[in-house]
Amino acid sequence: MGRWEPDSRGRLQEAALDLYSERGFDQTTAAQIAARTGLTERTFFRHFADKREVLFGGSALLQEKIVAGVAGAPPDSGALDAVACGLAAAADMLGEFRRDLSRKRQEVIAANPELRERELAKLADYAAAVAAALRQRGVSEPRATFAAEGGMTVLREAIRRWACEDDARELAAIMRDSVAELRMLAAGG
Amino acid sequence: MGRWEPDSRGRLQEAALDLYSERGFDQTTAAQIAARTGLTERTFFRHFADKREVLFGGSALLQEKIVAGVAGAPPDSGALDAVACGLAAAADMLGEFRRDLSRKRQEVIAANPELRERELAKLADYAAAVAAALRQRGVSEPRATFAAEGGMTVLREAIRRWACEDDARELAAIMRDSVAELRMLAAGG
Repeated sequence: MGRWEPDSRGRLQEAALDLYSERGFDQTTAAQIAARTGLTERTFFRHFADKREVLFGGSALLQEKIVAGVAGAPPDSGALDAVACGLAAAADMLGEFRRDLSRKRQEVIAANPELRERELAKLADYAAAVAAALRQRGVSEPRATFAAEGGMTVLREAIRRWACEDDARELAAIMRDSVAELRMLAAGG
Repeated sequence: MGRWEPDSRGRLQEAALDLYSERGFDQTTAAQIAARTGLTERTFFRHFADKREVLFGGSALLQEKIVAGVAGAPPDSGALDAVACGLAAAADMLGEFRRDLSRKRQEVIAANPELRERELAKLADYAAAVAAALRQRGVSEPRATFAAEGGMTVLREAIRRWACEDDARELAAIMRDSVAELRMLAAGG
């Protein structure tokens, strides 16, 4: 490969996920990640503030997309319908990633309590942002929070199923079916 | 007060919550907590492994009670009905606490990202245990996880409302109404 490498970020991410899953997150250094890609540690730190950002770097953008999806739902949508629009936007973004890398990310996080707590905090942030977007649409509390939290449970479970469970469907389809199952919960007791 | 003090644990807990909320969690030491109660640091560590255990010490028992409530629901209950039985058991235990101390606990946790992540991890553990109890009752996935997570959102929001929002109702009543609102969400879109 030449000196000019347009997808350094993607290569670093893939190498990092490989190493985290082979050796464990705590045992991997930025230098090792860089070495595996033939890049320098300096290049790693140009793309990522630290090792954790490889795992969580996309979360601000994801939250933005989900909130924009909720805000852009048709005006007469109910709370769960608006959340479903946010989830469709998330599926649009996340469905572009490779399943095998998403699976590695899930496994690395599940194996490390600190990363797991960080992931839960991110999901809680998304839920709070979605609840705020719903309140802006006129949804009252506690309905806004319940709809937002339900939506983030769907997000998490749909990603897990898509990445880790050999479910051949597209992420967007899994999300849609999950929202339908969430609705049936109330009807079914 | 005499040398023999039956409720050292309760006094330590109250002093700790006062200090955490006056000075911040990180700025408070076990020695200061003990000093405020007239007890020794050694006594503090006989009751609590560390400063965090003052905040999270009851969580294993709470999880046990919730799971027992779910497992003991009438055999023909739906998933959400069974979760409501678990929440009633939680309200039984938590409703005994003083609201003012519960409010301090909530505020201390909200002010500290690390404690907040710990609290979210506990709630995620409860949800996983409740989902397992539901599967044992024959509830399939993803319904079991959705019902369990919805229940833990109700738990969190009902406690917050009860402790922090001058809602005069008993915790059990707030929980019941919240479960009803969770049901309406699905029906109402």
